[in-house]
Amino acid sequence: MVGGGAGSFIGAVHRMAANLDGQIELVCGTFSSSYDNSLATGRSLYLPDNRIYKSYRDMFEAEALLPADMRMDMVSIVTPNHLHYEPAALALDNGFHVVLDKPMTFSLDEAYRLQDKVEKSGLVFALTHTYTGYPMVKEARERVARGDLGKIRRIYVEYPQGWLKDSVSEADNKQAGWRVDPQRSGIAGCMGDIGTHCYNLVSYITGLKALELCAELNTFVPGRLLDDDGAALIRYEGGVRAVLMASQITPGEENGLSIRVYGEKGGLEWHQEEPNTLIIKWNEKPKEIVRTANGYTGAAAKFNSRTPGGHPEGYIEAFANIYRNVALTIQAGMDGQQPAPEYLDFPTVYDGVAGMEFIETIVAASKNDTQKWLPIIKRK
Amino acid sequence: MVGGGAGSFIGAVHRMAANLDGQIELVCGTFSSSYDNSLATGRSLYLPDNRIYKSYRDMFEAEALLPADMRMDMVSIVTPNHLHYEPAALALDNGFHVVLDKPMTFSLDEAYRLQDKVEKSGLVFALTHTYTGYPMVKEARERVARGDLGKIRRIYVEYPQGWLKDSVSEADNKQAGWRVDPQRSGIAGCMGDIGTHCYNLVSYITGLKALELCAELNTFVPGRLLDDDGAALIRYEGGVRAVLMASQITPGEENGLSIRVYGEKGGLEWHQEEPNTLIIKWNEKPKEIVRTANGYTGAAAKFNSRTPGGHPEGYIEAFANIYRNVALTIQAGMDGQQPAPEYLDFPTVYDGVAGMEFIETIVAASKNDTQKWLPIIKRK
Amino acid sequence: MVGGGAGSFIGAVHRMAANLDGQIELVCGTFSSSYDNSLATGRSLYLPDNRIYKSYRDMFEAEALLPADMRMDMVSIVTPNHLHYEPAALALDNGFHVVLDKPMTFSLDEAYRLQDKVEKSGLVFALTHTYTGYPMVKEARERVARGDLGKIRRIYVEYPQGWLKDSVSEADNKQAGWRVDPQRSGIAGCMGDIGTHCYNLVSYITGLKALELCAELNTFVPGRLLDDDGAALIRYEGGVRAVLMASQITPGEENGLSIRVYGEKGGLEWHQEEPNTLIIKWNEKPKEIVRTANGYTGAAAKFNSRTPGGHPEGYIEAFANIYRNVALTIQAGMDGQQPAPEYLDFPTVYDGVAGMEFIETIVAASKNDTQKWLPIIKRK
Amino acid sequence: MVGGGAGSFIGAVHRMAANLDGQIELVCGTFSSSYDNSLATGRSLYLPDNRIYKSYRDMFEAEALLPADMRMDMVSIVTPNHLHYEPAALALDNGFHVVLDKPMTFSLDEAYRLQDKVEKSGLVFALTHTYTGYPMVKEARERVARGDLGKIRRIYVEYPQGWLKDSVSEADNKQAGWRVDPQRSGIAGCMGDIGTHCYNLVSYITGLKALELCAELNTFVPGRLLDDDGAALIRYEGGVRAVLMASQITPGEENGLSIRVYGEKGGLEWHQEEPNTLIIKWNEKPKEIVRTANGYTGAAAKFNSRTPGGHPEGYIEAFANIYRNVALTIQAGMDGQQPAPEYLDFPTVYDGVAGMEFIETIVAASKNDTQKWLPIIKRK
Repeated sequence: MVGGGAGSFIGAVHRMAANLDGQIELVCGTFSSSYDNSLATGRSLYLPDNRIYKSYRDMFEAEALLPADMRMDMVSIVTPNHLHYEPAALALDNGFHVVLDKPMTFSLDEAYRLQDKVEKSGLVFALTHTYTGYPMVKEARERVARGDLGKIRRIYVEYPQGWLKDSVSEADNKQAGWRVDPQRSGIAGCMGDIGTHCYNLVSYITGLKALELCAELNTFVPGRLLDDDGAALIRYEGGVRAVLMASQITPGEENGLSIRVYGEKGGLEWHQEEPNTLIIKWNEKPKEIVRTANGYTGAAAKFNSRTPGGHPEGYIEAFANIYRNVALTIQAGMDGQQPAPEYLDFPTVYDGVAGMEFIETIVAASKNDTQKWLPIIKRK
Repeated sequence: MVGGGAGSFIGAVHRMAANLDGQIELVCGTFSSSYDNSLATGRSLYLPDNRIYKSYRDMFEAEALLPADMRMDMVSIVTPNHLHYEPAALALDNGFHVVLDKPMTFSLDEAYRLQDKVEKSGLVFALTHTYTGYPMVKEARERVARGDLGKIRRIYVEYPQGWLKDSVSEADNKQAGWRVDPQRSGIAGCMGDIGTHCYNLVSYITGLKALELCAELNTFVPGRLLDDDGAALIRYEGGVRAVLMASQITPGEENGLSIRVYGEKGGLEWHQEEPNTLIIKWNEKPKEIVRTANGYTGAAAKFNSRTPGGHPEGYIEAFANIYRNVALTIQAGMDGQQPAPEYLDFPTVYDGVAGMEFIETIVAASKNDTQKWLPIIKRK
Repeated sequence: MVGGGAGSFIGAVHRMAANLDGQIELVCGTFSSSYDNSLATGRSLYLPDNRIYKSYRDMFEAEALLPADMRMDMVSIVTPNHLHYEPAALALDNGFHVVLDKPMTFSLDEAYRLQDKVEKSGLVFALTHTYTGYPMVKEARERVARGDLGKIRRIYVEYPQGWLKDSVSEADNKQAGWRVDPQRSGIAGCMGDIGTHCYNLVSYITGLKALELCAELNTFVPGRLLDDDGAALIRYEGGVRAVLMASQITPGEENGLSIRVYGEKGGLEWHQEEPNTLIIKWNEKPKEIVRTANGYTGAAAKFNSRTPGGHPEGYIEAFANIYRNVALTIQAGMDGQQPAPEYLDFPTVYDGVAGMEFIETIVAASKNDTQKWLPIIKRK
Repeated sequence: MVGGGAGSFIGAVHRMAANLDGQIELVCGTFSSSYDNSLATGRSLYLPDNRIYKSYRDMFEAEALLPADMRMDMVSIVTPNHLHYEPAALALDNGFHVVLDKPMTFSLDEAYRLQDKVEKSGLVFALTHTYTGYPMVKEARERVARGDLGKIRRIYVEYPQGWLKDSVSEADNKQAGWRVDPQRSGIAGCMGDIGTHCYNLVSYITGLKALELCAELNTFVPGRLLDDDGAALIRYEGGVRAVLMASQITPGEENGLSIRVYGEKGGLEWHQEEPNTLIIKWNEKPKEIVRTANGYTGAAAKFNSRTPGGHPEGYIEAFANIYRNVALTIQAGMDGQQPAPEYLDFPTVYDGVAGMEFIETIVAASKNDTQKWLPIIKRK
């Protein structure tokens, strides 16, 4: 693991998610730019001192020299955005599979370079768009794919949060600190942090490609340097229309990612805060309440749930689904086999590139107060 | 009453709403362009034949000649949009107070002319933006006004419906028929019918003025001549930002008007389909569930509810609040008194004008695929 | 109308419910034991002084002498329980149809005598178990009747309220005052006031007969003379088992009547505070959310709703369904016709008798701390 | 681990719960009475063959001989009820801490003997009443304890499930098989499996002692030998009254454990299927929606949650809280320290004894169709 020392939220989540199914073992790490913090963190995780490294460079070099049955197979990189590309690229160069936090990189250019590296390496690369790990999100995707809703027409996706409604100092809140700092977060604040989850969720559930968008990003908190709120109208292929809303200044909202997708025949609705329920909507018959781990769900939902219906599966389980599918994919490779199609159900470098293209486009669109529609930036 | 014959939905609603409190009595009407329909409707409502008129022109003339204690005091006009202005103007000319369905007129020009007539007449004029009649909407307004939420920043308002997802013939559905016909509905379909409710609700709850908007209206059903879906980004005074979404092609949605308003300190959320609940949101303390007819609500909510907490008040009661407040206002005038401030809590000709300006602006904005922001049209 | 003067809650509700559909006109009344209050109330309802009576005895005698087209056809009796039997009996004796509030009488003996009078009179008699008037309760009944759920096994019915959690003086709350007074309320407090609604709702939805029960009633508020809380296990015919819970001392509960019915195949759930939703439950497929005024509902739900789906119908509409069905039944009689079956869908004297038998039984069962099961008292 | 081989549900849950926080490592096991199954399970969990045992007897003996840094510290016993006592007793005899599934034993006598063994051993013993592990259950407990609700009066606790509504063969469903078999489950079916969770939850949240109860258990599925449904009225100390309802034949219910507790001042409500929400209820002010991992919650909720507000914590996290607290308690002991009070927040042998006493009492009460109240059996 790279990052995830004391004070990190997401590092601990990665570790719990990786632990959950007993398929992955933490064998080494460099958890902080401070070696003291790193050492303390590693020891608290029962690592021997010789597997707690001073830098990721050290770690990749040292681990690469270990015998195969000892050395790490993959690395989780859970640092702030400006420290994504370099360790990820170096890991790939050294032959390690990579799990990386989103947004994928600090800049779009880095994203393209990372894509090239992944493609050349043939290694497994996963991006933790966690919310695609929920069983009911997978059920939504399966139902759209098999045409239950008819041709898609209208999408609403939203992600309101309240935790950045006030000015926060880094001292008070380490999580908030780097997210509002353009030197570490990149050109987008709210849109990079959570808007990308919205954009990715639409892509995951519907498989549709965005064509152009019209957007306005806002900074409500005085003195803040990045957007803390925004909304976009997005045109997808096939005449599909979406509204995307994300905000970090809406008080009382915790982590309100929600999506509604409507086709010619039916609609669906999902809320991250009540993740085991998927609502299917019809004009001609009653709404249906589809629930995780019931016999009537599709194969993907079943493959990605662990407990019987009514035993709530939460955020860590969704996260763990990514780790488990990555582990199964890597294991298949080690066993010289093709991974089963259901193993490959995790976000990849292409989701990461799309997310960075979205960020570039929406920031440009917001700055442009005259031109209404901007085409989504795509790699030549 | 003008309009509201057999097959009309809203005519019956107006009559129930007017009946509810026993303050208003239906004394005459012209319910249809077909005299047979009108006669049948009137008789079913226990009207004598001599108070069932062949046309509104006949009615206004005849009623104006009746002695004061017999003649009607006010007229409810519940015809399709293209038949709003003329009977309303004529009613005012003949000295009758008017309750008119929204959107106020067929065109913006008519709206301005009606405004002039109302101002000159000194008569009571009410527009049935029903949703402002709900106690919890009034509570929301009161809480925003007294600053509970702090300075407002972000608004989401939406109105999804599903009933027009397919092409409908007038034979099948009289309600749908005229709404999708530009000759009777005006330049907007969905945005005129329900988008105006969204726009009005924001205005009612926050008191804010819209400055400019960026919008896209869509027509998803093949062959339909008016928009059946749309969304807008709206800039309000004071840096407040809103997203407005309305659709009539989202399957399974019944009448999903909802609003969320967030200020610097707190937020609120209200759903028309569960109208007796108002959710107040905070970062620092638990969400609060405010409910109609509890001792802790404000004066406006109390004045506009009829039964104890937990006895659901519905759409007809909200509608009846408009009628009752109008009746109290008229009665005060008859008694030579100033109406109490709480009586004046009903939508007026100015709401109607604002709604028509909104329609004009959003249709123009949607047609304009290059210019991002259009100022809201305002009367010179 | 008998009762319903200033300070009465239920009198106003009866009047609104009767007004709603424009089929019933208030023509006379005696609204209070105080003639001044009665006169003031009557005048505020636009009654002429000569139709505002000093007593119900005066009213029935005077009205009976009026010509048929002027005199009242039916009377609504909305007094406290101890003043139910006498005016109802006298009304029947004088040939007037009766709408009476529940519980039907002060004592079981009165109930049986009233039953005899109704049977002999051939007049229409309705008891306002309001909650059976909701469209989704009628839908529930229809679905049970047609066997959707399979043979019924298990029922949970509950009615928590919080408004009597503290000692209340009559001066503070007229509604509370008589309800906690055995001289006016009868032998039961909470169980008579709201427990009977639970019992009636089970009977209405399932059509099942109760055989025996085991119960405990409680009085939590010091000094109170009647039960303010209680629960019962009830055995119904065919091995069906029910739990009935009612309380008026559960803080924060408004008017929480809810019922769940489970059969061999499926279950259903309905909540009075969200009355337009009926949840249908299955093991093998998703839960279904049935909503008022959609095309897929049964005939009874359709006949008893007024507005399109998503326009909430509330408590007054449910109440008005009883009045409207009564009015249609009376009208059919006046027209010399059999009332249509759907008109006869309102609670009758037999529901009233069953309610009083339930009260007698549950109070006796609660007092008996040794014998577990008491058979439900039935008329010989 | 003892039990939890292929086809076991709860074994996998125990392992995930133990894994989650990285504090516990599975080092050995005997997973099935079939050594082949055991071997296969153990290997799939990356155990070396020499730590996969043929019997728990073998395991305890062999492990006890290993050096301290290699041998297991505690054992999780996840077998059906009839195989609880013996391995648990033997584990204690051999000096191993024990985590045991509920209900604690097959018979009450075994429970008392196990209590004695635990007390004598001084070892840590935990019973997996999982639902007490949820942060919002701990919040409920804290709020009751500090008197927020006032003196408690009324409790409703319920646990409807639908999965046993039909006759099930063991071949079809291994989970169902032993639960409906009195040879393996004990004298109670539904009440032992889930009724005990209800009873424990009341005890955990309120700290109240039950005095006597009145109950009826039912067997709805033909041919079934144990209860599959039941309800009880329970009298607690201090005049508190509870209704307890549990059923496994209510179709469409998944895992519907819910509790409502009302005091003189306020009430609370919690639903296992939406576990991160705790509703606090008042007459005089709005209901409050308390949510996991917000700054305003109490210390116990904070200590037992892992992710920020709005990131749902589910069933496995609740389960893991028990394991983590047990591990912290054991670790403190190893470190020669008193465990911090918050570590000791897990169900103990006394909860297990109380559960077995409840089972004995409710089964006896149900069989007794004449005597209304039976005192809760207590150890002399």
